Amino acid sequence: MNAMAGTRDAFEARLRRIGAERYHDRHPFHVMLHSGGCSLDQVRAWVVNRFYYQSRIPMKDAAFLSRVEDPALRRAWRSRIEDHDGTETREGGIARWLKLAAAVGLDPDYVASARGVMPATRFAVDAYVRFVRDAPLVPAVAASLTELFAPKIHAERIAGLLEHYDFATPETLAYFRHRLDEAPKDVAFGLGFVLDRAVSPAEQDAAAAALVFKTDVLWAQLDALHAAYVAPGRIPPGAWQPGEGMAS
Amino acid sequence: MNAMAGTRDAFEARLRRIGAERYHDRHPFHVMLHSGGCSLDQVRAWVVNRFYYQSRIPMKDAAFLSRVEDPALRRAWRSRIEDHDGTETREGGIARWLKLAAAVGLDPDYVASARGVMPATRFAVDAYVRFVRDAPLVPAVAASLTELFAPKIHAERIAGLLEHYDFATPETLAYFRHRLDEAPKDVAFGLGFVLDRAVSPAEQDAAAAALVFKTDVLWAQLDALHAAYVAPGRIPPGAWQPGEGMAS
Repeated sequence: MNAMAGTRDAFEARLRRIGAERYHDRHPFHVMLHSGGCSLDQVRAWVVNRFYYQSRIPMKDAAFLSRVEDPALRRAWRSRIEDHDGTETREGGIARWLKLAAAVGLDPDYVASARGVMPATRFAVDAYVRFVRDAPLVPAVAASLTELFAPKIHAERIAGLLEHYDFATPETLAYFRHRLDEAPKDVAFGLGFVLDRAVSPAEQDAAAAALVFKTDVLWAQLDALHAAYVAPGRIPPGAWQPGEGMAS
Repeated sequence: MNAMAGTRDAFEARLRRIGAERYHDRHPFHVMLHSGGCSLDQVRAWVVNRFYYQSRIPMKDAAFLSRVEDPALRRAWRSRIEDHDGTETREGGIARWLKLAAAVGLDPDYVASARGVMPATRFAVDAYVRFVRDAPLVPAVAASLTELFAPKIHAERIAGLLEHYDFATPETLAYFRHRLDEAPKDVAFGLGFVLDRAVSPAEQDAAAAALVFKTDVLWAQLDALHAAYVAPGRIPPGAWQPGEGMAS
C-alpha cells in the first residue's frame, strides 16, 4: 500500500518490479522445461494443463469486452480474441497449441476436451476469468500486464525446447513465435491504459494488486504441475495419467 | 454418465462411492496430521489455510439462501450460518477455529485477516462459493454432501490430535466436536433434498458431478498445503512463512 500515488514512471517501475519478483519464469518447473530437464510425460502434463489456460483466454477477453461501453476500446481489445481463435483465413493461437499437443504425441481432441486437466489448474484459471469479468476495468486490464514479462519467457522457451527436445520445431512451436509478435502490441496498449487511468494511490494499489493476483494465477498452475508430475509426483484424482489421451 | 437414472438407493450408493474414492481423508497430509507426523509449523500452515475455507462457508450458505424462493427451505438452511457465525448467546464455528489458532501459537487476528493464505487455497475455496452461487439448486446442495464423510474424519482428527499434540485439548478442538453434532443434521437434510429431486439421469449426473467437484476443492487444498509445507516444501510468494503471524 502506498500513501502517495507514484509518478507515471515510478508506477510503471512498481509494476515491473512485481514481474521481476513473482513472474513464473522464476518457477523451478519452467527452469526444468527450458533446460531439457522435463521428461516427455512431464512436457505432456504441461501441454494438457496449459491448454486449459489458453482455452480460457479468449473467454476472458470476451468477458472484458462485454463490460466496455467505448467502441474504440472494444475495437482495440478485440484483436486478442482473433489472435487466439483465428479468423476465416488465419489460424489462431489455440489451433497452434493443439499442434504442439500433437507433436508431443497427444491426441489433440483429448487435449481440446480438457478432460485430464487438474482441478487446481481449473480453479486458478477460472479465478482469472472471473476476476476480469467482475473487477473494475483498470484492474481487469492490469491483470493482463504479465504480458510485459512474457516475451522473455517465450524466447527462452523456443530456444530451450529447440535445443533439448526432438518434438520441437519451428512449426510445433509456432504458438510461442506468434506470441512474440502479438504480445508487445497488446501490452503496449494495456500498459498505457493502466498508466493513464490509475493515478490515485487507491487506483495504483488496485492495479498492482491485480497484477500480483495474476502472477499468483500463473505460479499456482506451475506449483500444481510440479507437485503432481515432478515431486512428490502425486497426481490428483481424475487428472491426466501418463499413457492417457495419446494419439493413436 | 449413466444412461438410466438409478433408484433412490442406487443413487445414494453412487454418491457414497464418490466419498470412498475421493474424499480428502485419503490424502497423505491428513494421514500425517492425524498420526502426529506434522511438525507444529505444518499444523500452523494447515490452520492458516483451512481457516480461509471455514471463513467462506457462511458466505457460501448465504449465497445459497439468496437464491431460494421457498421460506421453508431457507429456514432449514439458515442454521448453517448460525452454526458458523454464532448468535448473541452462542459461539460459532469460526470463533472456535480461532481458539485452535491461538492454541497452536498463532495470533488469531492474523489468521482472521487471511493474510498468508496461499493463492491455491483461495482459488479452490472461491470456486466452491461461486459454484454454489451459480449452479442449479440441486447440484448446489449436492456439493455440500461431503458432510456425509466428515464425521469420520472429525472423530479421527480429535483422537489423533489429542494423542499426538500438546496443544490439543477438548477446548482447543471444540470446533470438531461441535461439527460432530451439527453435520449429521445438515447432511440428513441435504441428502434427502438431493435424493428427492435428482431423479432423471441428467439430474443425477449433475448432482454426482457437483460432489466430485467438491471433493476436488478439498483435495486441491491439501495438495497445495503438502507441496508448500511438506514436499517439496516450496512456499508460494506471499504465503505464510514459519514465524509469521505468531501470538506475541
